[in-house]
This record gives sequence, structure tokens and C-alpha cells, in this order.
Amino acid sequence: MAPKYEILTPQTVPAYIDRTPQLAGIVDTATLEVSEVGDGNLNLVFVCKDANGDGICLKQSLPYVRLVGEGWPLTPERVFAEARGLSAAGAVVPELVPALYYLDREHYVLAMEYLMGWDMWRSQLNLGNAHPGVGADLGRFVAANAFSTSFFSVDQLEAKQLLADAINPELCKITEDLVFTEPYIEADNNSYVDELIPEVDAMRADTRLLAEAGSLKYRFMTAGEALLHGDLHSGSVMVKHTATGAQCRVIDPEFCYYGPVGFDLGALIGNYLAAQARAIVLNRPAEYQQWLAEMAVETWDAFEAEMRRLWPTRLDKTWTDGFLEEWLDQVARDTIGYAGCKANRRIIGLAKVTDIQELPHDEHVKAATIVLRTASTWIRERDSLGSVAAMGAVFDAKAAEVLGS
Amino acid sequence: MAPKYEILTPQTVPAYIDRTPQLAGIVDTATLEVSEVGDGNLNLVFVCKDANGDGICLKQSLPYVRLVGEGWPLTPERVFAEARGLSAAGAVVPELVPALYYLDREHYVLAMEYLMGWDMWRSQLNLGNAHPGVGADLGRFVAANAFSTSFFSVDQLEAKQLLADAINPELCKITEDLVFTEPYIEADNNSYVDELIPEVDAMRADTRLLAEAGSLKYRFMTAGEALLHGDLHSGSVMVKHTATGAQCRVIDPEFCYYGPVGFDLGALIGNYLAAQARAIVLNRPAEYQQWLAEMAVETWDAFEAEMRRLWPTRLDKTWTDGFLEEWLDQVARDTIGYAGCKANRRIIGLAKVTDIQELPHDEHVKAATIVLRTASTWIRERDSLGSVAAMGAVFDAKAAEVLGS
Repeated sequence: MAPKYEILTPQTVPAYIDRTPQLAGIVDTATLEVSEVGDGNLNLVFVCKDANGDGICLKQSLPYVRLVGEGWPLTPERVFAEARGLSAAGAVVPELVPALYYLDREHYVLAMEYLMGWDMWRSQLNLGNAHPGVGADLGRFVAANAFSTSFFSVDQLEAKQLLADAINPELCKITEDLVFTEPYIEADNNSYVDELIPEVDAMRADTRLLAEAGSLKYRFMTAGEALLHGDLHSGSVMVKHTATGAQCRVIDPEFCYYGPVGFDLGALIGNYLAAQARAIVLNRPAEYQQWLAEMAVETWDAFEAEMRRLWPTRLDKTWTDGFLEEWLDQVARDTIGYAGCKANRRIIGLAKVTDIQELPHDEHVKAATIVLRTASTWIRERDSLGSVAAMGAVFDAKAAEVLGS
Repeated sequence: MAPKYEILTPQTVPAYIDRTPQLAGIVDTATLEVSEVGDGNLNLVFVCKDANGDGICLKQSLPYVRLVGEGWPLTPERVFAEARGLSAAGAVVPELVPALYYLDREHYVLAMEYLMGWDMWRSQLNLGNAHPGVGADLGRFVAANAFSTSFFSVDQLEAKQLLADAINPELCKITEDLVFTEPYIEADNNSYVDELIPEVDAMRADTRLLAEAGSLKYRFMTAGEALLHGDLHSGSVMVKHTATGAQCRVIDPEFCYYGPVGFDLGALIGNYLAAQARAIVLNRPAEYQQWLAEMAVETWDAFEAEMRRLWPTRLDKTWTDGFLEEWLDQVARDTIGYAGCKANRRIIGLAKVTDIQELPHDEHVKAATIVLRTASTWIRERDSLGSVAAMGAVFDAKAAEVLGS
């Protein structure tokens, strides 16, 4: 499974840029400083900065999972999926994604804008730093992508070809296994502290919850609504304070494929839950906690507002205003359920999140318990909850249960 | 748009068979009698019988819709879709489809078993002839196909590739336009007698019905559950009385693609409705009417029984028994809605059915009114009806309304 193509190193990157005409003039390779910063699990990532302050970011896929090595092969074509996702988003919300410079299909290299001076949002959340408005930007991001890649705005013949071209089975399988399957069974990838065993056991004994988790998995696999980001958590968002307020950029859409729109919204809200549980056990300032508590609704409201703004431009008017209401209800119920699935997996399954993992032991147990109970209720009760606005009360109740307040 | 490949005629078919090694030995071409019987709208169909009583059926696609001519181009690759559908069904219910002999990709010719002595089911229904057990066979047909082509029994990586390979956008567009769009708007393809104008106007003014019809269209376009037949009406079923009882064969799966399982069941039941409306206005014998009245439930029960029989063999046990109940509920609600859509289009839209069209005027108006009112209620109330068993009472009520009994 060793790559048959040249693998870049910090030393070879300047020469690679020099011999790639599509990248001419972006940076001065004579003064380029290159660092490999792929702290993600899958790829090589080179950030490059020259003496003029210009930059570029190169991402190269390996034919296996970087974290694990050649024992876990994975198609390097995932970088093509990432280019597809960046390109689709760049067409409608260019202010919310890095600019895509070039896709090298021979070497599985993606060249894009280097987000110099931007921070990963999860790190900022872990520090307790607020970036007001980012939740709304992300809701608008999901709506713009959903509308522009779906039958709402793409001709019915063309959209089906796009869906077929965008299947991303190997990456989707990672989600299917890690998000929807393993947390609910005994699996080697799972791990959690002993104090959580009763919580996890209760979840796995809850037949109603298991049926709903199965149903969400099934929709993930069969509902080809729009080109999703596919992995839209707070580690896939970069943030920055600017003179005009906080801004964000969405990165890493290599899991993109045609799926249910609520999956991206749920991924966001499931990660907000982790941040919120961290904030409450660390006694962050009330204002910060309030900002987090309102973010799910802020995101949903921006999503809904953007969908309603775009709706009159849809191609097919046999989808009436009444249909839009039904559609939004379905997306809301999906969002609630997917938020729960995405949160549960971060506690039980393979890929943990620092929000919860890096807490001191007692706080870790409390935060993880709040997340599991909230997430499981969201999954089980998604139909009766019915709206994102109803999700916060579940968190409040579970936090009170666990913290005894 | 004239074909670039040789178009067969009854005169050239024997030589075609002679020069095609895959067809050697099936018939004696020296004594072959060939008739072109493509009374469908799309293709050439040659039935061939030799002096020994052996037969073969050849179907050739043209690059346009046969009924309309070169002014309505349509991919001849639809014959590849038909081969895919026949092959998939042949793998699990070979007793319910004609044997597939050969697909000639160069000339867009499909060679299959000639169903000698079999009748089109719709013609038999029009005559008032019962074929007991056919409804159950068709329910089992849908379940066997749904299970065997879906994630329930196909590996998750492979199933996505199958879905991508099986997109059938041009044929699906016909369904989208004729079944889901045109009946609900003013469209050149629509036609109906003046007496139906108030019925159609009421339907188009019913915002709840329009939202549900839009939702069913959306699911048709986005719910990639299993390889459907895609056009499963009583003209796609051949029937025969044999020593062991009535038998059926399903033909013409050229509309096959990955869609919602309830669409095939709904197509059947929507066409049962036309037969039932015909039978009641013609005062067919009570026993015959009873047989028709029970057929929707017979079909559903056989579908459900086959799904439950296959369920323990599913690949992924995280889809629990509780999930199966949810899944069956969703399929039932889809079935009710799609039955309504398929019935409405047969009254209002382009492709009518002889069940209703060939009635005398007064009976035509009565039967068509019963169909429209029943179908519209099914669409609008599909969630509250909830089960196929609840559909019959709607027909009874609407028939009583119209016939004043």
C-alpha cells in the first residue's frame, strides 16, 4: 500500500510549487518557510509562508490513514472530494471557505489559501474565547450549500449525475462505523472511563434509542438531498477576530457526499454540546455560557432564514411553500438526531474531542455524562422535540441532574 | 437523432439471431415467425416463435420515444437499465420475471424469454378476469428486490457504487414530470373530460395535498433505498392460469433506479384503484370486486411477510427489530401517497389507462371521479391513514359519494 506517487516533504515543497504552473506567482519560493502541520488524522498538510508575508497551503492525501499507517488503507481520492466541496462552497459563499488554487490529480495534492493567523475554532472554544456570529455564519453556510447543490437549484438530470460523481463510499463508511455503529455496540475502537459504563450500558439497552440511531444511519446512507460538508465539527472551522467582528472559514470537506442536510447542522450542534458541557463544568463566565447556549438556535435560525431567502429562486415551483414547511420540519428532526449521534461518538468512540478529553478527571466524568444523557435524549425524542429551539432545555435538565444544581 | 445503429425489422430478426452467438440454439431461425408487438410507447418489441414451439423476445431501444418520434429524444441506454432490473430480480425471484438471455450493448437489444400464451394483466382486469394470488406474488417481488439490492444485504461500499451506476435520470424525469408535476399544474400533456374540471380544480387548490405531492416527488428524487422496478403497473405484469393456479411475470423494468421502496408498492395499488373503479361502475360480480378490494392488503401483507422473513439475514445488526418497525411504517406511508400519485396521473396526465379510458362516457366520469377523490385523499392523509389496511375505507366512502349508494 505504499504510495506510487511522490510524497511531499517540507524540503521538496518549494520545488513542487516551482514546477507547477498553476501555482506560479502565489508565493516567492526562494524565501519560503514550510511546516508540516497535519495534526489531523488523515493527511499531510504543508503551510508555506514567504518573506513578503504571502502564503499557500498544500494538502496531500496518502493511500492510508495517516494516524494508523498502511494497516488502514484509504483512497487518496478523498482529496478530490475535498476539492469538490471547496469548489461548491466557493461558488456560493466564497467568504466562508479558503480559496481553492489547484487540484493535482496525479499527486493527490490540493493547493489552497493559507489561513494565516486564523485559529481552529475548537481550540478557541476550549480556551473559553467567544467569536460572536460564527454560529449564524455556519447556518448560512449549510443553507447556501444545500440549496445550490440540490434539486432546488440544479436541473434534475444534472443533479443526479453530480450525486453519482460525488459518492464517497470509503469516507462515508468511516462515519457509518464510527458515528452510527460502534458507539452502540462493543467495539475495539471504543474507550471511556469506568464511571461512564452505566451510562453507556443504559444507552445500549434502550431499544427506542437504538431504533432511532439506526434510522438516522439509514437516512445518512440513503437520503441524497444535497452535497454536504460531511464532517462539520468545530475542528473543521477556523476563526479570527477582525476589525469588523469575528469571522470563520470552513475547511476539510473531504467527507463531502450527497446526504441529508440535517447531518451537517447536527454535526455542528453536537460539537456545540461538547463545548457547552466543558464550559459548565469549568464554570466559565455566565456570558460565555449564554453565548454557547444560544448557538444552536442561532445556527438554525440563520439556516432557515437563508433557505427562506433562496426559496423563491427554486427551479421547481411544484415544491410549494407548504412543502418548504414540511421540509424544514424534517431537517429539524434530522438535525436533533444527528447532533445526538455526533456528540455520543465523541465520548464513546474512536475520535475523541479535546473539549471533554482534556478536562481533569472529575470534570471529565461530569461533562461526559451530561453529553451522553443530553445526546441520547435528543436521539430518542427527536420527533417529539421537533425543533432545534427545544434542544436547549434537554441540556439544562441533564446538566442539573448531573451537577445537582 | 436518427439511430446510428441498425434498427431491427421482423425481416432482419432471424439473421440477427443467427449472427449472435449468445442466442444460438434458443430457436430454429429457419422456421421463425416474427411479429413486432411494441404497443408500449417507447420501444420496438419482436416476439419470435419457431415451428417447434420455441420462442424468444427481442426488445430494441430507439434514441427517441417511439410514440412521439424523433422530436422527443430519449437515451437508448434505457435497455441497459431494463437488463439491470431483470438481472437483479432474476437473482432472487427468477420465477417472477422472464429469463434474460443477452444484452447487446452495441445495438441496444435485449433478448429474453418469450412469454408465450401469457396475457397482459391490465387486459385481463379490464375483462373482469381474476388471477388469485398475483397480488401476493407482486408484494413478494417488491420485498425480494428491495432487500437484495439495498444496504440490508449489499455491502455498504458496493451498494453505493450500484446506486451510482443505476442512476437513470432521463427515465426518472419522465416520472417526475408526468406523475408528480403535470397533474398538479396546467400542462399541455394533460387532458380530461369537462365533467372532471371541478375535481381537478379542487385538487390544485388544496395546499395540503400539493405539499404532500411535492414531498412524495422529493422522496422519489432523493431516497436511494433500493433498486426499484420504477414502473410497476398492471401493464408491466403478465399473467397466466396454470394447473397450479394463476401465475405472473413482471416485465419492463427500464425505469429502474435506486428510489423509495414504497414507490413500487404504490404504483401497484394505484393501478388496482383504477381496476376497482372500473369494476364498480360496470357492476362486476361481487366476488370479483371483493378480490380487487382485498388486493392492496394482500400485496402489502406479502411484502411485509417477505421483509420479515429476510430480516434476520441482514448484514448490519445495528438495524434492530425496532428499526424495522419504523422502516415498515415509513414504507407504508410512502405507499399510500405514491398510490395516490400514480392513480391521479392516469386520469389527468399524458399516459392514460384503458381501465378508465375505454368505459362509456357516464361510467368513465363516475370511475374517474372515484379515482381522483380516493387518490387525493390518500395523498393528503397518508400520515394519518398510516397503513395500507386503512386505504380501502377511503375508496368505499368515495365510491358511495359518487354512486349515491
